[in-house]
Amino acid sequence: MSSGLQVNPGVLGIRPLINLQGEIKPSSTVTDVSSGDLQRAGMPPLSFARQVLAVCLYPELVEDDTLPPDVKQRAKMLLSSCNGGSVGSYPQTASGIPEVLNSVAKFIRRRDGGVTSRSDDIISSTGSQKSLQLVLHLMSSGVGRTQTGVLIPVPCPHTLPMLLDDTRVKQVPYRLVEERGWAVDLDELHRALKAARGQCEPRAIYISNPGNPTGHVQDRKTMEEIIRFAANERLILLAEEVHQDSVYGSDKEFLSYKKVLFEMDTKYSETVEMISFHSISSICMGDGGLRGGYMEMINLDPAVKQYIKTMQSSSSTVILGQLALEVMVNPPAPGDPSYRKYTQEILHRKETLSQNAQRACDFLNRLRGMSCQPAMAGVFLYPRLHLPPRMIEDAKRLGVQADLLYCRWLLEEEGLCLGPGCENGQEEESFHVRLCILAPAAALDDVLARIASFHLRLLDKDAKDTDSVET
Amino acid sequence: MSSGLQVNPGVLGIRPLINLQGEIKPSSTVTDVSSGDLQRAGMPPLSFARQVLAVCLYPELVEDDTLPPDVKQRAKMLLSSCNGGSVGSYPQTASGIPEVLNSVAKFIRRRDGGVTSRSDDIISSTGSQKSLQLVLHLMSSGVGRTQTGVLIPVPCPHTLPMLLDDTRVKQVPYRLVEERGWAVDLDELHRALKAARGQCEPRAIYISNPGNPTGHVQDRKTMEEIIRFAANERLILLAEEVHQDSVYGSDKEFLSYKKVLFEMDTKYSETVEMISFHSISSICMGDGGLRGGYMEMINLDPAVKQYIKTMQSSSSTVILGQLALEVMVNPPAPGDPSYRKYTQEILHRKETLSQNAQRACDFLNRLRGMSCQPAMAGVFLYPRLHLPPRMIEDAKRLGVQADLLYCRWLLEEEGLCLGPGCENGQEEESFHVRLCILAPAAALDDVLARIASFHLRLLDKDAKDTDSVET
Repeated sequence: MSSGLQVNPGVLGIRPLINLQGEIKPSSTVTDVSSGDLQRAGMPPLSFARQVLAVCLYPELVEDDTLPPDVKQRAKMLLSSCNGGSVGSYPQTASGIPEVLNSVAKFIRRRDGGVTSRSDDIISSTGSQKSLQLVLHLMSSGVGRTQTGVLIPVPCPHTLPMLLDDTRVKQVPYRLVEERGWAVDLDELHRALKAARGQCEPRAIYISNPGNPTGHVQDRKTMEEIIRFAANERLILLAEEVHQDSVYGSDKEFLSYKKVLFEMDTKYSETVEMISFHSISSICMGDGGLRGGYMEMINLDPAVKQYIKTMQSSSSTVILGQLALEVMVNPPAPGDPSYRKYTQEILHRKETLSQNAQRACDFLNRLRGMSCQPAMAGVFLYPRLHLPPRMIEDAKRLGVQADLLYCRWLLEEEGLCLGPGCENGQEEESFHVRLCILAPAAALDDVLARIASFHLRLLDKDAKDTDSVET
Repeated sequence: MSSGLQVNPGVLGIRPLINLQGEIKPSSTVTDVSSGDLQRAGMPPLSFARQVLAVCLYPELVEDDTLPPDVKQRAKMLLSSCNGGSVGSYPQTASGIPEVLNSVAKFIRRRDGGVTSRSDDIISSTGSQKSLQLVLHLMSSGVGRTQTGVLIPVPCPHTLPMLLDDTRVKQVPYRLVEERGWAVDLDELHRALKAARGQCEPRAIYISNPGNPTGHVQDRKTMEEIIRFAANERLILLAEEVHQDSVYGSDKEFLSYKKVLFEMDTKYSETVEMISFHSISSICMGDGGLRGGYMEMINLDPAVKQYIKTMQSSSSTVILGQLALEVMVNPPAPGDPSYRKYTQEILHRKETLSQNAQRACDFLNRLRGMSCQPAMAGVFLYPRLHLPPRMIEDAKRLGVQADLLYCRWLLEEEGLCLGPGCENGQEEESFHVRLCILAPAAALDDVLARIASFHLRLLDKDAKDTDSVET
């Protein structure tokens, strides 16, 4: 009997690394630092958040004397915002629980120093990727020269290329400048756009700031240039700002695209269409698996905004993820019983991150055949591999990217999973790996030692083989 | 500045009732019995499940002396199956946590009296709708005469038509027989299929058993006929079996399509392609908002099965929903400390459901202008409205379905939200409403009183107006 189920090739690329992992080692013996998953990396969750959510799930816990009173208060408030007072009910509206959206708007106003924010412009989601998917789905149209295109950075978040393929949106890559710590270059934006016109219909520019996986933090001048570029070229700004709370570079600070836009001339602030994305996988929560996030829509046509809200299906909403989002954007305040513990836990994460980044970057730069731009934010380092020409040839013969081959061998030999740069859409003949550095110090040391051991063995073996050929 | 975001009309219908609700009354003053949401209906959640999940969220609760030991044990076991031992991490595989899939397979074997079930055939999801959406997305192809069609019952679950539109699959409606308690009629299946051929490419038949919203429970003979029909016509069987644990009709029992199929001749059991759907919104859990479910795939081409697994994006997986699913399919066993309380809570739900169904059905049948088939399962009643011809005319003039108008007026006058039959895809000139009957007895009485009060006012007013016109 023939199957009515169609396998549509190319709708969604099969990620080689996922297969690879499955084939080679059982998951329990693999250390996976390829994604920014704080919980998997062994960072303890935030007590206040988890306590509040536990009480929401099992309200009888209000009788538990070990839980602080502000935890119980918050849980009661959150439960009263749920249908039937229960996290197991379906939400009233797909765009989000009103109390949660209000807290998000307050958070944005606080963060952006008084710039206005209205809950009506905000839609909660099950994460930044899901929000972006919805927006891309809406933008997607045409084929060939009329196909929707989106400018994306190279390198970009490793989940992005698949998302674009899945929604049939054409990638229009613009290269970030590695030597300048992966900064955006305006000439390159113009080049990319010019090259794309005639090939597709570029409709938006995607920005990741702080950069994933680069750790670059954009300055106000660059952001203003990008906004003017978007305005002149009539592109929608899609600003992924998930790592906004993890800036550790000295003299660096996070500025939201919205703040910068709203502090520009009204010819920009009142016209440039922008959507910004944030989620609970950021380091001030680090609970991505609970699925929560939001997007804020600026200067969008009200009809389009309403349509996005309608498209957001209530069947994809996760109540508990929304409550986690509320806790993230509305943490304990000074004077609250949980304030001290909360700030200690956050401080510990930020210090760990900053120290790890410094240590790992120094370590990797001392390895021959590797160079690493210092990161200023985020949870990744993205070092460059200077691979022996013979290995690059080998990879070509095998029909895989050399960094993927590198990661595969590393996984086989050391049980360590890094992300190959080819997943981040890097340039031809330029090889990188991605590693999450947010982990307890000892765990990071172990990761670095395994990388060094494998990496030097690889280089030494190549040198020896080359010698023996030359002899 | 023109928007690059396209509003694609018709991709997703805007549900009138959602808008309506938002416009007319703030949610807190509306009693909404239009969907099968146990939590919103005021049914208390199951203690064991919520306790286990609370400990998973905040593992320090293992120190809480008021929580039973089997709760703590289960939480530990579940946490050890999560990446990094945390519910906030991302899952290793998108198709599900292996321990959860194993528990589901065991549950199916137990339920179906020894019929085999392999975890490899099971994919966990964020609910039955999401699984179905993925499958429809894969089946969807063609336009016009080559567009994929799926046979669907009339009435069908109110979420189904939107799902089909969204995935661009054509509805091929087959009418259920109201006078026979909404049974499936084989001649009608043949008629529907014949009428559709040439108009589209029918590829699957969708079954809801126990029927949503009808409460009908299919018998083995009917199911065998449907399976033979699917086999002969080369249709995939999509079996929604979410209400499998809520059969209360006397002499009725739930048989899964898989069990019936596997007990037929091998020419069927080894060839008919089938996918069955289940979720934690069923009454043995009733926590739909936590988002968990699974689908089991039978006789599917291994390549297709693998492709479905790949398509299932890990970004849509909710760890906590998967753990809730595990607790649902693997409840406390006799001898466990939580067994007694668990069975009492389940029994209370089932008794409430059975008594409510009987009482509400009797009550509605006593109202003139209304008739209601007795339900045998599920959480809905689906009574028929015999409306005054003038109201039907009024509705036509307003361009809405008469049952939608009925529900709108009821909402305005009584603050009570029922589901209009037009959402369930009913026949022309045949009007129904959908109401969830799983609620505490007093709450149901209140709902019934408000329906009666409104309904009789409506009929009396019509009679008076008609009199005065005739006078």
